[in-house]
Amino acid sequence: MQDLTEIFATIKHLFDEQQFCFEPTELYEPIDYTLRLGGKRLRPALLFASNQMMGGEMEQAMSAAVGIETFHNFTLLHDDVMDRSPLRRGQPTVWTRWDENTAILSGDTMFALAWRYFLKKPHANLQAILDCFNETAIEVCEGQQYDMNFERRDEVPLDEYMMMIRKKTAVLLAGAMKIGAMYAGADEEDLRHLYDCGINMGLAFQIQDDLLDAYADQNTFGKPIGQDIRDHKKTYMILRALELCNPTQREELKSLYNTDRHDEKSVNAVLEKYDELGMKAHAEEEIVRLMKIAENELAEVKASDERKTPIKELISTLIGRQR
Amino acid sequence: MQDLTEIFATIKHLFDEQQFCFEPTELYEPIDYTLRLGGKRLRPALLFASNQMMGGEMEQAMSAAVGIETFHNFTLLHDDVMDRSPLRRGQPTVWTRWDENTAILSGDTMFALAWRYFLKKPHANLQAILDCFNETAIEVCEGQQYDMNFERRDEVPLDEYMMMIRKKTAVLLAGAMKIGAMYAGADEEDLRHLYDCGINMGLAFQIQDDLLDAYADQNTFGKPIGQDIRDHKKTYMILRALELCNPTQREELKSLYNTDRHDEKSVNAVLEKYDELGMKAHAEEEIVRLMKIAENELAEVKASDERKTPIKELISTLIGRQR
Repeated sequence: MQDLTEIFATIKHLFDEQQFCFEPTELYEPIDYTLRLGGKRLRPALLFASNQMMGGEMEQAMSAAVGIETFHNFTLLHDDVMDRSPLRRGQPTVWTRWDENTAILSGDTMFALAWRYFLKKPHANLQAILDCFNETAIEVCEGQQYDMNFERRDEVPLDEYMMMIRKKTAVLLAGAMKIGAMYAGADEEDLRHLYDCGINMGLAFQIQDDLLDAYADQNTFGKPIGQDIRDHKKTYMILRALELCNPTQREELKSLYNTDRHDEKSVNAVLEKYDELGMKAHAEEEIVRLMKIAENELAEVKASDERKTPIKELISTLIGRQR
Repeated sequence: MQDLTEIFATIKHLFDEQQFCFEPTELYEPIDYTLRLGGKRLRPALLFASNQMMGGEMEQAMSAAVGIETFHNFTLLHDDVMDRSPLRRGQPTVWTRWDENTAILSGDTMFALAWRYFLKKPHANLQAILDCFNETAIEVCEGQQYDMNFERRDEVPLDEYMMMIRKKTAVLLAGAMKIGAMYAGADEEDLRHLYDCGINMGLAFQIQDDLLDAYADQNTFGKPIGQDIRDHKKTYMILRALELCNPTQREELKSLYNTDRHDEKSVNAVLEKYDELGMKAHAEEEIVRLMKIAENELAEVKASDERKTPIKELISTLIGRQR
């Protein structure tokens, strides 16, 4: 059995030995650039940890692990074009370093390359695995669309926000765990528990991301505090805050949040409102609540505690980070 | 057995009964719009005709037929963004009717929907079918990249152009024929002949497209004559013409073709050069040569003449059109 450090080392090695450069280089260089930048490689780690927990042989799931990360990076390439994001992992995004057309077409190719990885290894259960991967992919696209829709809306109910982050973020984490277990031949019941564990963990992960934007330690946090506020992004923080307000406070907070161009003063004014409403505690409470569900789902899975250790560690690194 | 008219009627019925509208509507409406516009639906027709020729049951190949057309339309959505094309099938393209982000994300979703169709029907040979579909998809992306690369190049050798149209156009037609036959359980030898038939037919199809741009009957042709010239597109016509020139003529023709803004006079001057070089006859000769290869490949396939009739008719409608 591999511990978490070994799992991440295996993944690093796996990516290091992959060949992503083919002809035409204009198409494949941006793919190589993206997949070599690294990132957390969380999805392959979840896939491996889940596979191992259910008694699978890592070798069998390796290709799918590269596939799911390739798919995730395809969505980043296109999201960055759609959101006009200049940076990703501290480096220029593909559409800024090359151009938009490159990001579109290299992204499309990465989606197909993800399929190539998934199709590489025959498996008795392959059709079900591919179904799971593809339905997840469709939900991720839907999630990105909801996210873009929300930008144009004045107010978004919190439950719609939760539905959006479920699709945009949580289903792929849950899908990675489920697919890892499918390669190990896990039964339907365990698959359901693992999937639901992944969903709740994914929701908690996104809410933590929203929380950190307002309450991270500026000295250790990679980004400036309050960037979501400056971008007028719909986040758990603002949407929950609006729900906690009385009608007068709500109009005040909305117009404050939607200030045309935020400066330090207006960002701080929003942050003060969050303080007044106790948003740090509210968000933390929600994260704890979701993580409790995730843990309960994991507890139901028929595997020894020893086998569950790496995935438990992975989840707690994820959610504990920087808090 | 269905004749060609019946095959097209089956396809029309198949698309009419599909549901493409789901939530969020912002994502699925452009997909519904695109897939309802129709077009020739050539790829599903080739898939069906080939399936039937090899003794397959249409019912089994239906989902793949919708899948391959959905994939083809995904590539059109993204190509239209990359090429800034305002019209497709006489209607506004998705990126002009909605916006670029919509064309990108709805396109991505169509690629995943194509997979959903392919995954719908279990088949003993499914992994090989999916492999064929996916490797074709990758080649189509590569073809589009070569096409974009060529736009930035001063001169492109004819053999590189043939390689590009092979990937961009021919492999999907060939793939449709091969996949149809795979559903019918055809053997490797027949699959190879069918694929090579499709490749050569696809090349002939593209060269005919290039030829029609210069020599179509203006009264029946849907587009203005010489649009490829106005767009400075690398086509069979100009690249072959340049190869037929002596060095002095070549520099003349190149500078004429690359005129900053073409007017009627400069377009006509290019067309006159084509006449002088006998380009109509050269292109027709090449089409006939390729079609001869395609027919020979088809002749090798182990099926009765009666079973081959619809696909033969389909091929001759395709290549005979408007000439």
